[in-house]
Amino acid sequence: MRLGEFELIRRLIKELPPPSEKVVVGVGDDTAVVKAGRGYRLLTTDALVEGSHFKRAWKETVEEFFFLLGKKLVNVCASDVASMGGEPKVGLINLGVPPDGKEVELIELYRGVGEAAMELKVDIVGGDTVKSGTLFFDMTLIGESPSYMLRSSAKPGELVGITGTAGDSRGGLELLERGRSEPKYLIERFLSPKARVREGREALKLGVKCGTDVSDGLLFNLGTIAESSKVRIEVESSLIPLSQELTETFGKEKALEFALYGGEDYELIITFPERLIKKVEEIGFKVIGEVKEGSGVFLDGRKVRTKGYDHFKEEE
Amino acid sequence: MRLGEFELIRRLIKELPPPSEKVVVGVGDDTAVVKAGRGYRLLTTDALVEGSHFKRAWKETVEEFFFLLGKKLVNVCASDVASMGGEPKVGLINLGVPPDGKEVELIELYRGVGEAAMELKVDIVGGDTVKSGTLFFDMTLIGESPSYMLRSSAKPGELVGITGTAGDSRGGLELLERGRSEPKYLIERFLSPKARVREGREALKLGVKCGTDVSDGLLFNLGTIAESSKVRIEVESSLIPLSQELTETFGKEKALEFALYGGEDYELIITFPERLIKKVEEIGFKVIGEVKEGSGVFLDGRKVRTKGYDHFKEEE
Repeated sequence: MRLGEFELIRRLIKELPPPSEKVVVGVGDDTAVVKAGRGYRLLTTDALVEGSHFKRAWKETVEEFFFLLGKKLVNVCASDVASMGGEPKVGLINLGVPPDGKEVELIELYRGVGEAAMELKVDIVGGDTVKSGTLFFDMTLIGESPSYMLRSSAKPGELVGITGTAGDSRGGLELLERGRSEPKYLIERFLSPKARVREGREALKLGVKCGTDVSDGLLFNLGTIAESSKVRIEVESSLIPLSQELTETFGKEKALEFALYGGEDYELIITFPERLIKKVEEIGFKVIGEVKEGSGVFLDGRKVRTKGYDHFKEEE
Repeated sequence: MRLGEFELIRRLIKELPPPSEKVVVGVGDDTAVVKAGRGYRLLTTDALVEGSHFKRAWKETVEEFFFLLGKKLVNVCASDVASMGGEPKVGLINLGVPPDGKEVELIELYRGVGEAAMELKVDIVGGDTVKSGTLFFDMTLIGESPSYMLRSSAKPGELVGITGTAGDSRGGLELLERGRSEPKYLIERFLSPKARVREGREALKLGVKCGTDVSDGLLFNLGTIAESSKVRIEVESSLIPLSQELTETFGKEKALEFALYGGEDYELIITFPERLIKKVEEIGFKVIGEVKEGSGVFLDGRKVRTKGYDHFKEEE
């Protein structure tokens, strides 16, 4: 593959017809937004593929591995909807079953999907189950919302807030790669993240206009806000919330690196006017920086690279 | 895999929570049906996987192979919506890119998706592009309709109608398997079927209540109507429409076998009261049989097996 992931996607999208006027937001934000009655429909899809997103070997170190993976798929999709301020409603699941696919594993996977769907009040209404050389499963999730947050709505003068803690998911992945099963907290943060649906909806209700989730890494996702909103974002590393489990397991420096570049935390990032600070904190967001005029992302006053890991391009 | 495809699916579905009252039709018909305002949303998803649904080698015999495959994916999904009488509206596409995936092929694939989306007036609003050991692509399609046809609505005394011709798709597949590239008509019927959206909508408008599409084979799909409607279906082999290309290439007997068991024709089957016969024929349906009290599918007076090809179970 000569093109990187994002260039390939840009190239593929060019082949699609221009969207109709019902499509308010097309490809490019966390979810697509389509006008529906007096509100909006939010649409997203995510795939998990063996070898790329998980390794079968991990089931040896993690109990209920496929159960957690099933929960993850639903929450990853729900996080996209949450980052727009919406409520997940209806989902469809595709499953690619490899020749050596084990029924008990697939059933465990669906048990995870089912539990997450129950927790998030999502109706799973369909799917396609097919033979495949590689185990994959994906979900398309449709949410609803009276309005929505966008990456491109950040305004100079606003503050930047984040839910929970950053970097834990990458910490969990590192542990799995090393064949370790403790601390369980970190591994579950990677294998079974929780979509911040409540936080997204409450932020939207407060009037917050700009949101996204930490899917590709904090700096990368801040970069998408900076670029699409045409603003500069300045964050303070000392303000970035890190879990005790992460800093104790990997040390402060590594923990911060995971938080900045790790991805898959599925925490929400919003930008909001200062007058909302108390209410935003009550919802569960912590302030980590501010929005300025300009461009780029700055950490402790220095411009930083915001590039995430590119899944497609050969390593340089 | 010890379980067959349908048993596995039944087992997996058991793990999902019961649907909410907004879900009018869940897993089990051509699309799910969800109440939306005064009408209904129809949701379906289909996956095409290399090795299972197509072979890369076929690109040697077929020009614009990936372009046709891209069109197929959209039409296969649209056919599900058509068989409920709905109008396709919004789609999302996932793409699993193998290590040896060629950009030109993927772009050609998307050109096909784009052209079919344009023809069917479908907005493609999102997708996920991931690394995968096996090339796969799938689509989730959302349609709309003021009401809908079901497999389970056939009534004794009704007639059975079908659009177009049956068996061509299987004929095309046979040609591809033999490395042949002619007749092109048959190969394109397999690689690039056309969803019968107009026919489905017009049948629904006439008041037709029961419909499905020929995805797994004519007898198999008639069997799903018979079983879910608790009726007997009797068809006459002499009435089943066969194309000249199919009978000339394979002979009358083989052509009929393809029509009965072949699948992937994506023609529509409906059952309708006799008083509608003229109008139904004007839309493009041909009568092939009738609905009776009882159970099973009968061909020329004899009960026939309606089992389709099972993708999962090892060959017996």
